[in-house]
Amino acid sequence: MNTDIGTELWPDVTPDAARRLMLAAVDAFATRGFHGTTTRDIATAAGMSPAALYVHFPSKAAVLFAISRSGHSQALRMIRSAAEAEPDPVRCVVRMTTEFVAWHARRHKVARIVQYELHALPPQDFEVVAELRRATEHTVRDVISAGVDAGAFTVPDVRTAARAVLSLGVDVARWYTDTSKPDPEELGRQYAELVLGMLGVR
Amino acid sequence: MNTDIGTELWPDVTPDAARRLMLAAVDAFATRGFHGTTTRDIATAAGMSPAALYVHFPSKAAVLFAISRSGHSQALRMIRSAAEAEPDPVRCVVRMTTEFVAWHARRHKVARIVQYELHALPPQDFEVVAELRRATEHTVRDVISAGVDAGAFTVPDVRTAARAVLSLGVDVARWYTDTSKPDPEELGRQYAELVLGMLGVR
Repeated sequence: MNTDIGTELWPDVTPDAARRLMLAAVDAFATRGFHGTTTRDIATAAGMSPAALYVHFPSKAAVLFAISRSGHSQALRMIRSAAEAEPDPVRCVVRMTTEFVAWHARRHKVARIVQYELHALPPQDFEVVAELRRATEHTVRDVISAGVDAGAFTVPDVRTAARAVLSLGVDVARWYTDTSKPDPEELGRQYAELVLGMLGVR
Repeated sequence: MNTDIGTELWPDVTPDAARRLMLAAVDAFATRGFHGTTTRDIATAAGMSPAALYVHFPSKAAVLFAISRSGHSQALRMIRSAAEAEPDPVRCVVRMTTEFVAWHARRHKVARIVQYELHALPPQDFEVVAELRRATEHTVRDVISAGVDAGAFTVPDVRTAARAVLSLGVDVARWYTDTSKPDPEELGRQYAELVLGMLGVR
């Protein structure tokens, strides 16, 4: 990943050195896991000294937290924007699924860190991320509930259905690679169709 | 996890000391990741010396491979048994999904290692596991294809649908905990209903 991707992934993070460190951490965590990575590994990969890393992040866990919080905030914004933009539950679910799936496919490397390294966060940081996850899940649940009330959806259990919708998107990050087919947008569209079926729309 | 769970998870593995090491490795990998775990950590947690570990496994990676291969073999057996026992595609998909989901919920700790630590395997070991995964995916794809041919299923793409079915099950291991609701069997049943919808059966 290069610096441009850093700007695209984390437009709110400044300065550029902090983004470079986050990108280097994503690579290192992806290769050696959080516990197998040292702050020196991250700093070196970003072309900096360990001391320079500490100017931007107090610890390796703080870099993980920055990556994880940012990813979860973006997911929540994506899901909330769809909920606000599309009052129709069917159109809303299509948009949510397409965007959520495409993001996890396109950004599978960073998404894997965001989704699978949570257990390594210190408790108070974990709680911040857990709250973002709950808010995302509640938003999806509210949309499905609205669809059930409107007679558009039929599901065995709203909570389980919301989990399943998000689960399909998250798991894309596990198996998707740079050479996977179909491309992220087409995969998003196919998954949206599957999700509509899952919610009883056919 | 205690030794009884070891016998249940790995009935084919002998002697008991090898199973104890695999259980200790699951705990250690779950807490510190593969790269953050030493062979000494595993041996100590199993109440053995590092030298005693090497009697059963040539390396830490060999313990991971034993856990991963066994989990993937069991998943393949489960999926193939369902395919052989249920000639009707609808009943077959219900059975596959229920069992696959319930297993990932009930055994979420070992399933996380089985599903998420693949990248740490040496190339030739990875290839063995990848072959088991391909066989599992092909079996699911064949069942969905048969259902499409029989007019029971309608999907945008058979390959994507098979991935989505397996994805739903695998991702349960990520979020399920010992206190999650519903219980593994009920979750399996709810997911089977969602999967039928996904495949256009309603």
